[in-house]
Formats: sequence, C-alpha cells, structure tokens
Amino acid sequence: MRMYDIIAKKKHGCVLSDEEIKFFIDGYTSGSIPDYQASALCMAICFKGMTDEEAAQLTFHMMHSGDTVDLSALPNTADKHSTGGVGDKTSLIIAPTAAVLGLSVAKMSGRGLGHTGGTIDKLESIPGFRTTLTSEEFMSQVKNIGVAIIAQSGNLAPADKKLYSLRDVTATVDSLPLIASSIMSKKLASGAETIVLDVKYGSGAFMKTPEDATHLAEVMVNIGKANGRKMCALITDMDKPLGKNIGNSLEIIEAVEVLRGESKGELYDVCVALISNMLSISTGISYAEAEEKTKDAIDSGRSYKKFLEWISAQGGDVSYITENKLPVGKFNDVVAADCSGYIAHLDAECIGSAACALGAGRVTKDDSPDLSAGIIIEKNVGDYVQKGETLATLYTSDSTKLESAKKAILSCIKYSDKQPESNPIIYKTVY
Amino acid sequence: MRMYDIIAKKKHGCVLSDEEIKFFIDGYTSGSIPDYQASALCMAICFKGMTDEEAAQLTFHMMHSGDTVDLSALPNTADKHSTGGVGDKTSLIIAPTAAVLGLSVAKMSGRGLGHTGGTIDKLESIPGFRTTLTSEEFMSQVKNIGVAIIAQSGNLAPADKKLYSLRDVTATVDSLPLIASSIMSKKLASGAETIVLDVKYGSGAFMKTPEDATHLAEVMVNIGKANGRKMCALITDMDKPLGKNIGNSLEIIEAVEVLRGESKGELYDVCVALISNMLSISTGISYAEAEEKTKDAIDSGRSYKKFLEWISAQGGDVSYITENKLPVGKFNDVVAADCSGYIAHLDAECIGSAACALGAGRVTKDDSPDLSAGIIIEKNVGDYVQKGETLATLYTSDSTKLESAKKAILSCIKYSDKQPESNPIIYKTVY
Repeated sequence: MRMYDIIAKKKHGCVLSDEEIKFFIDGYTSGSIPDYQASALCMAICFKGMTDEEAAQLTFHMMHSGDTVDLSALPNTADKHSTGGVGDKTSLIIAPTAAVLGLSVAKMSGRGLGHTGGTIDKLESIPGFRTTLTSEEFMSQVKNIGVAIIAQSGNLAPADKKLYSLRDVTATVDSLPLIASSIMSKKLASGAETIVLDVKYGSGAFMKTPEDATHLAEVMVNIGKANGRKMCALITDMDKPLGKNIGNSLEIIEAVEVLRGESKGELYDVCVALISNMLSISTGISYAEAEEKTKDAIDSGRSYKKFLEWISAQGGDVSYITENKLPVGKFNDVVAADCSGYIAHLDAECIGSAACALGAGRVTKDDSPDLSAGIIIEKNVGDYVQKGETLATLYTSDSTKLESAKKAILSCIKYSDKQPESNPIIYKTVY
Repeated sequence: MRMYDIIAKKKHGCVLSDEEIKFFIDGYTSGSIPDYQASALCMAICFKGMTDEEAAQLTFHMMHSGDTVDLSALPNTADKHSTGGVGDKTSLIIAPTAAVLGLSVAKMSGRGLGHTGGTIDKLESIPGFRTTLTSEEFMSQVKNIGVAIIAQSGNLAPADKKLYSLRDVTATVDSLPLIASSIMSKKLASGAETIVLDVKYGSGAFMKTPEDATHLAEVMVNIGKANGRKMCALITDMDKPLGKNIGNSLEIIEAVEVLRGESKGELYDVCVALISNMLSISTGISYAEAEEKTKDAIDSGRSYKKFLEWISAQGGDVSYITENKLPVGKFNDVVAADCSGYIAHLDAECIGSAACALGAGRVTKDDSPDLSAGIIIEKNVGDYVQKGETLATLYTSDSTKLESAKKAILSCIKYSDKQPESNPIIYKTVY
C-alpha cells in the first residue's frame, strides 16, 4: 500500500477503505508517512469529504493510536462534550446532577486556550481542588460518589494531536469529518458508554449557522454509534454568551447559583436538556421521565449537595462555596450603556475576547489565566436599557486592563428600537 | 505575510497576488516554508486552479529562483520544447535547420527517464560527441555556426525542481497551471527569445485528448508572452510513435534520413511546421514564406551539411554518420503479424515500454541506457498486413530481452477489417 495512491484516490473523490485509513493513521503516528503527504490528503478531504463510514473508521484508528481508558468497572458511564463557547459552565452542573441520577461521571477535561479557561481552570479557582488524581483514586471516587473530573492525562489519541497540529498550519481545519473525528477520537478514548454532545452555533462558536452545527452533530453522533456508544447531540445557540458570568471563578459562582435554585433561565434549561438526554439514552427511560427526575434532582437541592461532596472529595475547600468566598478580581468597574434601546445583539466571540483581555484566558499555552478576572453581564439580548444604565461589571487583578475592556464590551453590543426576536436556546436534538 | 493565509486564500478559490506567489516561491526555495504547507497549497491549486496571470507570476518567480542564461549577445535566439513522446527526434532536425535559416539555437537538453533516452542520450550514441561545453565554448559555437546542444547544467529553476519532487509524491502533478509553470520556468531560464512548443496528446503523452493538450498549450503560450517571449505551440498526435525508429542511435539514423531527403512523412511534416513557426514568429515573415525557406533548407541538403558541421564542432566523429556506421544492437529479431488486417492502433506508450524493455531507456535515474537498442516500426497505423508479415525489427545488446519484447509489441497493436481513419499529425497551432 502506498500513501501516494491513498491521496490520489481521495483527490478523485473515491471512498477510502478501512485498511487504507488504518495505513494512513498508523504510518502518520509512527512517522513513516511524512507531514507533506498527510497535509495533501487533508486538503483533498476538505474538498472531497468523507462518508460517515470513513469518518467512523478514521476516528476508530485515531482513538487506538494511543491509550484508551477502561471504565467498564463502572455502571452507566456517561460523558458530555461541548464544542466550546463563551460562558459555558454546564459541566459543573451536569456532572453532580448526573451522579445524583445514578450515572457514573468519570470525566477528563481540558484547560482552555482563548477566551476563558477550560473546566479544569475553573475548578482550580476553588482553593485546594486537585485536578490530578491517580487512576486508582479517580476510579474509586467515581465508584463511591458517582463523579470525578480531572485534567486530561495519558497519551489519548496521539494521532489526532499530531494531525490537528498539522491541519492548524495548513488551512485544513474546516472539514466536517476531520473536525468530527478529531473530537470523537479523544472522547471515545475516554471510555464513557453514553456521550451527549452540545454542539454550539453562532458568533461565539466554530459553526456559524444552526444548519452547519446540525451537520457536524450528525457526523459525530454517527461516529459514536458506529463505535458502539449511546449518542445524542443538542444544537444550542452561542450567538450570545451562555448565562451571565464569564471568567473562571465567576463561572463557578454562577453554576452554584443554578445548583442552589437561585437562578433559572437558559443555562438551567440547557443543563436540564443535556442531563435528561443523557439519562434517557443511558437507561432507556423516556425523555419526559428523565426530565422530571433531572429537574427534581436540581430543584430539591440534591445536585448542590452532590456538588459539595464532589468538590470536597477532590480536596476543594467547600467553605469558599458555602460562604460565598470565591475570589473575584480586586479591581472592578461597570460598563454603562452608550445608547438607549433594546439590546439586539451581544456578540459572544467579542465578549469572550474582552474577558480574555481582562486576564481570564490564555493567549499562549504557557500563560496562567487570572482565575478571578471576568465579566458579569447585567443586560442581555432582548433587554431594554436606558443610556447610562449598567450593562456589565468587569473584574480583574490588573487595573490597567479595565479601560480598554470597557470599550471592547461596548463594541460587542448592537441596539435596536424594536424588541428583537430571540432564538430558542436549543435549536434541535440529534439522535 | 503568512503561508497559512496564502493556502486558505487559494482553498477558497481566490486569486493570489504577485507578492503572495513570490513569498511562497522564495520561502519554499530557501526552506523557510515547509513541504507540508507547499503540498497543501499544491492540492488546493489542483482543485481551484490559477488564472493565467497567477501562472505567469508563478513561472516568473520559479525562473528567478536560480541561474538564468543570458543569450542577449546572440541574434534571433530560438528554442523548441516538446512535452515528451515516443520516437520524438525532432530536435535533431530542427536545430541545424533553424541555424541554416539564421536563427541561433543555444539549447540545453535533458536525459530521458522512461521509454527511451533524451536528446542528450541520442547524441551520445555518436562517438566523440561532447554533451558538456564550458559556457564560453557554448556561446562561441552558437555565434560561429548557429547551433549547439548541451546537457542541462547550472542551477536552473531550483524552485521547480524542489516543487516537482514534492508534487510527484503528493498526487498533485495533474494541474494545468502547475505543469505549465514547471515546464516554462526552466524554458524561460534557458534564455531564448523565441520558444516553439510541441504539445503532444494521445496514448504516449501526458495529455490524453487534443482538447486537454490545447488547454495546456494555451496556458504555456500565455505564460511565455507574459514574460516577454515570442511564443507559439503546435498540438500534435502522439497516439502512435512519431516516425518509425525508437531508440537512441536508431533515432539519430532516422533524423539523418530526413535531413538527407531520404524520408518524408509525418516526422518531416512536424519538423517543417515547428521550424516554419519558429522562423515566422522570430523574424516576422509570413508562415508561407517561412515554410518555403524551411523546406528549401532541408531539401537542398543545407540542413544536413549544417548537421555534420554541428556534430563535428562538438567533437562527434561524422564518419559514423556519413558512412552509416552508427551502432545498432548486435542482436535483432523481427516481429511478425499474428493476424491479417489493417493496423487500427499502435499504442505509443506500449511501444515505448517495449523499447525500454529492450534496454533503450532508463528505469532509474542512475541507469545507463543501451544506446544501440530499439525498434524500427515497419508497418504503421493504416497499413494493411498479412499474417506473418514483418511488423517491426527489434535491436538489443542483450539477446535475453528479445522474446518478451516481441510479445509486448504484439500487445500494442489492434487490427481492423476496415482502413481506419487517420488523425492529422498536427491538430492545431496556438499563437
């Protein structure tokens, strides 16, 4: 078998065989296939696509290019993956709630690069929280209390890591099957039986339209099913940020508000839908029954109790939660509306960049984010504001960053004389 | 400027600027742009193409990536380039004839890889002939007698050399602008003011149809003109071999027959058309007048005299020509027709492979071709043969090669009950 022929075959729009895809991934991982052939193939895939079967095979071989986590000792393992967004703190709510409902959440999560930190960065804003556990500690915690979230470790899907780095510098990222197989290879290697995806669309997401997000979701759901997992995907709006807090400790604070029943709204709705789907496809009960159980878990306070139990199990000082002591930036300022009118648009990507400018995100891999920095959005899309009213409050440890962030926030907002129509937060569910 | 953005721009079908193309070629030649980005760009070009202007700019920058030959001290410099074919010995006839007509032929030529040797290999079958001259010897010979052909030397278009090697292993060869710029960058670097192209189509050529060959010719003619050269291209039939002899010394022998007026036919016709066009576009006289002068040069024997003068000037022993002593393989055999009927097809590529199997070509770059090996075709397309009649005579220095070559030749032939329609040897001329 020759890589040349595989490239030529895809270039001419033909379907690659499982053997050919395995040859490519094995050879590229081992280094026997050079970068320049891999990038030519990726560019051909950008133009000619892949069938669902090819994408599933590509994912399978990338998943098996490194370690895979064996969760078979745990009952009803379930995981959630979001394609990223601004203000997305759903994992913090979903993980303890799923545990309350009898699912096993043995989750590995990433650190963020870009707007704000990842789930691991957010959890590290709780003093004492350990994001690294031995695999024995990890498994036994999930066995005992149903939930653990740790930083990604081990050598998961090294083929994906290598290929993604190459795609990133050869303008070959934007191919649905390549995006889908990249995400799913790591997710499958992480071992959960049930996987619920939250695929975002809008200005703060990679996919700009709900239709494109749906296509990506369909490819990923098919990849997971072809590899023996229980799958579904929600298509959700990321045109504006999810919830009101953006930033690491600020997002923990908002998640706690939801868990305590102090805050309902779109964040609550998205979490309920994700958990209900997870429970329904994992256990086979109806969506309606799963939704009732989910809401009861949160509304009864059991999810909040589980959250405290989980944080404590990983060494976190829960008094910071129970006594509302989580650090927020010592410098703060408000952004006042520069017009009167309805907020017609609040650009999620733009708000994310402003949060990053306040110190909440990483610009390079080696940065340490300012865990106490971020933004609380006081007025969101659809709200009417008077000129001079507070739109948002900014927090940072570095006062020199406030002025430019204020200007940046104002540039994210569009006003309208009429109340804008709002998108439903959940566009559809793909099974 | 970033290579990433150049790849992304071409991938989206946009036209690259001259600065972007220069950035790519300069960076790729120097090594600051890696192979994996160059191959991704080439694949995007395969899908999205290039405008004539982009192709001309690409050629210009590849030409200037290394040495360029300065022929400005010579009057009316002219060159011919053929896109390769089986039995193509036109350079041997065109070079001395153009010199007779007052043009300066300062030509660098290649060695062949594949079916038979290149022009340089053919010339080396004349004992004593020197294919390497100093640049002073080269220039002064052309000044004195109007013609010299030497092996390609110097560092001509290194960007093309590097890029072609990459395209060859990444399935990105078959792009018209990339093929055209590859050929033309070397041709332009060789310095002639007038360039006549012989673009082949058919089974023995890279382009399989006259339409595809015409497209390639148009792109190359436009590239040459955009770079200030006088250009034209003939589109000629390479479905069957050109002329009757295939092999290194055998092709010298056939060229000499044409120069002596002993052989007319398609080879003569193609040479007359190429030289007449060269003379007409170089000096501005009409094609009809140029054709009359060209035929007179050959038919009067002056081209043959110039041929001998040229061979002698480069150290060749002309007695091998004048006394018909050129080496032919000491083992020979005839191929007899296995059917009766009209020859409907004589596959050029197949015949070329058979000549290679007799030893006439190189399989790898380091092989030395058997200069005395080859094939004389006795019956060509349109001829009627009786079963058992001689179709071809084979020559080789290695008698073990005869049997399989005989079988191979028979597999190249298709018979018909009816006399087949013949393609004109010249399909069209592109100015």
